[in-house]
Amino acid sequence: MTDQSTPEATSPNLSPAATASARAGTAAGAGVSRRRLLGTAGATGLVLGAAGTGLGYTAAPAGATPLTSLGADRAMFHGKHQPGITDALQARGHLVAFDLAPGAGRKEAAALLRRWSATAERLMAGEPAAHDDTDVARDAGPSALTVTFGFGHSFFDRTDLRRQRPGALDPLPDFSSDRIDKSRSNGDLWVQIGANDALVAFHALRALQKDTGGAARVRWQMNGFNRSPGATAHPMTARNLMGQIDGTRNPKPADPDFDQRLFVPANGEPAWMANGSYVVVRRIRMLLDDWEKVPLTQQEDVIGRRKSDGAPLGGGTETTAMDLEKTGKDGTYVVPVNAHARITRPDQNGGAAMLRRPFSYHDGFDADGTPDAGLLFICWQADPLRGFVPVQRKLDRGDALSAYIRHEASGLFAVPGGAAKGEYVGQRLLEG
Amino acid sequence: MTDQSTPEATSPNLSPAATASARAGTAAGAGVSRRRLLGTAGATGLVLGAAGTGLGYTAAPAGATPLTSLGADRAMFHGKHQPGITDALQARGHLVAFDLAPGAGRKEAAALLRRWSATAERLMAGEPAAHDDTDVARDAGPSALTVTFGFGHSFFDRTDLRRQRPGALDPLPDFSSDRIDKSRSNGDLWVQIGANDALVAFHALRALQKDTGGAARVRWQMNGFNRSPGATAHPMTARNLMGQIDGTRNPKPADPDFDQRLFVPANGEPAWMANGSYVVVRRIRMLLDDWEKVPLTQQEDVIGRRKSDGAPLGGGTETTAMDLEKTGKDGTYVVPVNAHARITRPDQNGGAAMLRRPFSYHDGFDADGTPDAGLLFICWQADPLRGFVPVQRKLDRGDALSAYIRHEASGLFAVPGGAAKGEYVGQRLLEG
Repeated sequence: MTDQSTPEATSPNLSPAATASARAGTAAGAGVSRRRLLGTAGATGLVLGAAGTGLGYTAAPAGATPLTSLGADRAMFHGKHQPGITDALQARGHLVAFDLAPGAGRKEAAALLRRWSATAERLMAGEPAAHDDTDVARDAGPSALTVTFGFGHSFFDRTDLRRQRPGALDPLPDFSSDRIDKSRSNGDLWVQIGANDALVAFHALRALQKDTGGAARVRWQMNGFNRSPGATAHPMTARNLMGQIDGTRNPKPADPDFDQRLFVPANGEPAWMANGSYVVVRRIRMLLDDWEKVPLTQQEDVIGRRKSDGAPLGGGTETTAMDLEKTGKDGTYVVPVNAHARITRPDQNGGAAMLRRPFSYHDGFDADGTPDAGLLFICWQADPLRGFVPVQRKLDRGDALSAYIRHEASGLFAVPGGAAKGEYVGQRLLEG
Repeated sequence: MTDQSTPEATSPNLSPAATASARAGTAAGAGVSRRRLLGTAGATGLVLGAAGTGLGYTAAPAGATPLTSLGADRAMFHGKHQPGITDALQARGHLVAFDLAPGAGRKEAAALLRRWSATAERLMAGEPAAHDDTDVARDAGPSALTVTFGFGHSFFDRTDLRRQRPGALDPLPDFSSDRIDKSRSNGDLWVQIGANDALVAFHALRALQKDTGGAARVRWQMNGFNRSPGATAHPMTARNLMGQIDGTRNPKPADPDFDQRLFVPANGEPAWMANGSYVVVRRIRMLLDDWEKVPLTQQEDVIGRRKSDGAPLGGGTETTAMDLEKTGKDGTYVVPVNAHARITRPDQNGGAAMLRRPFSYHDGFDADGTPDAGLLFICWQADPLRGFVPVQRKLDRGDALSAYIRHEASGLFAVPGGAAKGEYVGQRLLEG
């Protein structure tokens, strides 16, 4: 994981950092040069945003307090899409699902989304909450805070909005390897918080929880993390807790069908989901005690890539196209038939593609010393039936990795497009 | 909390960042200037260390891979004291206690400490573990990783070393407000891990756990965090999850009795604890739902300081000496008699002083939405009976803050001095 100010942001790599940079288009190159001269991104007042007019770096207001790089990074709340989808991975994340309280319906939900949007906008700008701020984020910059809101299948029953419920929210099929805890799955409302400072993230979590008043209550909540900006200077995709480079084949903003795969079209159905996306969230526990006993070459056969640099087993670098037909001296495929990277390739799945933007998690150890750790898998797509579902179905049947992971929780949420100025997230649904 | 490269490191402030800087002596001033010119600390290859010869910045080996600032920060394993005591707070921390396995004794413990020391030295230098590295920290710099080892009261029974057990390890007295979970308290061995990258910290935790082999098993484990380096440019002590500035009155390295208060003297007793320290660890849950309902002025009366900037209620700035005798128009003390800051003042406790170096923690929410969050309180002193105990005894009787916190776990450990080159931590105990 890298800060937007590091060289990775302009590498041909497909990591979310690169994604964010590519969003900035040609401005990124100049921005990086300027920031290199000045030493820190923060000192330049550059702001990475997704403002309605386009996706570019814009100057921060003159006179703003100069902050060091990490704290000054700011994502914009308003825009075509919600923040937290194509932005660079942050070092700290919270996922939280809420259920509407008994008696709360559409009216209370609309008021809640209005409060939430106002709070998210303020906090992402580095301002305190409007009422009774806890001061936990005081002195810190926005630290690339993003807040993202979604609606689950049950939300539409609770609010009498069944006719507005997208077919894409139909429950995911059961997968044979699933070990799903329903109490930590789904929910009426979903909030994703990401920031490069853990206190900024916690501050947002508490402010949004307080905003619920009596209208909703926490159903489940999970904490995650990624590499800190600046911890590595290597232009490489993030690693997960198995030590694997994770996210190499993510769609690239330069792909001609990038938007089409990730986002519901502006004229798509239902209308309130224009420019929105669907997110699949899976708490995937890694059986690290088992995995770490596997010798390196076998680990690489399980994944189909070199562990050191993510290159396909056929050779090259992380970005080299994988040669699925290549065979070794013994006549077997160099990339085994059940290798994870082979099975998940879009061209093996009818073009299915999703943007994975995960956090690692570690919730301590079980009583026997087994780590409760793994991946908060978060993937984005215009249509789950053409993204997550076909890939997971294939993985469920024959992925060599499945012996080392366990899906323990699952959620599917409709994430509407970004709010325009003066609008709140979901307004087109709740007041449509 | 801030990176060593920010202005805080040379401020008169008493935060651990300042402590670490002061360790570097006069070299720090030049170092900071040079890094300011160059923009990032990492690019200069400066290394902040506690090497045996003194406490200074030293140049990294020529030809080392240039890393960005956060990743390149490196603490030294060898030195007069163990790392992780006076070093700057890191963004991520793990605390873990182990019990020796049935049948394991002094010999197995000695072999384990030898393995642990070797691993800590390698990892703190940014190198992989000697055997079967998991690759989770691959590509990242040391990221200011520190590893600190301690021995609990029960260790000396298990290893037949009772005669070497310091009186200072006698169990802490019970405090009336304690709600201690014994299964998450004490333990034979204690390890503290801190780093500015969460994957680097997790990597170290797993490597050290693996080193135990069959000799020890996890008793309890906790995760914590602090502000990320660079998230704030304000020269201020860290905030906790109550939003309070926390650590203002920490002893300063410039204090004439700093070493005397923190460390066992070189000729102290027992001999194996020369240059060591005693650490008290308390998992202090914050009752945030209650606390956040308290109006600001009442919160400030509870603490005795302004929430915004940590200044005493009598006025001034964070570093202004607190005037305990000052009264308001109504004749009552401006700093209330039960204010936390009044009760904890060293001059109100026979000079008791300890260095607090905590992490915040957040382990999700209880079923009813209550956050399981607070402070992993970690305090260092030459003698717990002159540091933590008298202060906690007074707090237990009359601290206004006690209504908003709950001590849920407790540990006391003897942390020997740093290992010399070729030596492992605790060798003077285990082979003495």
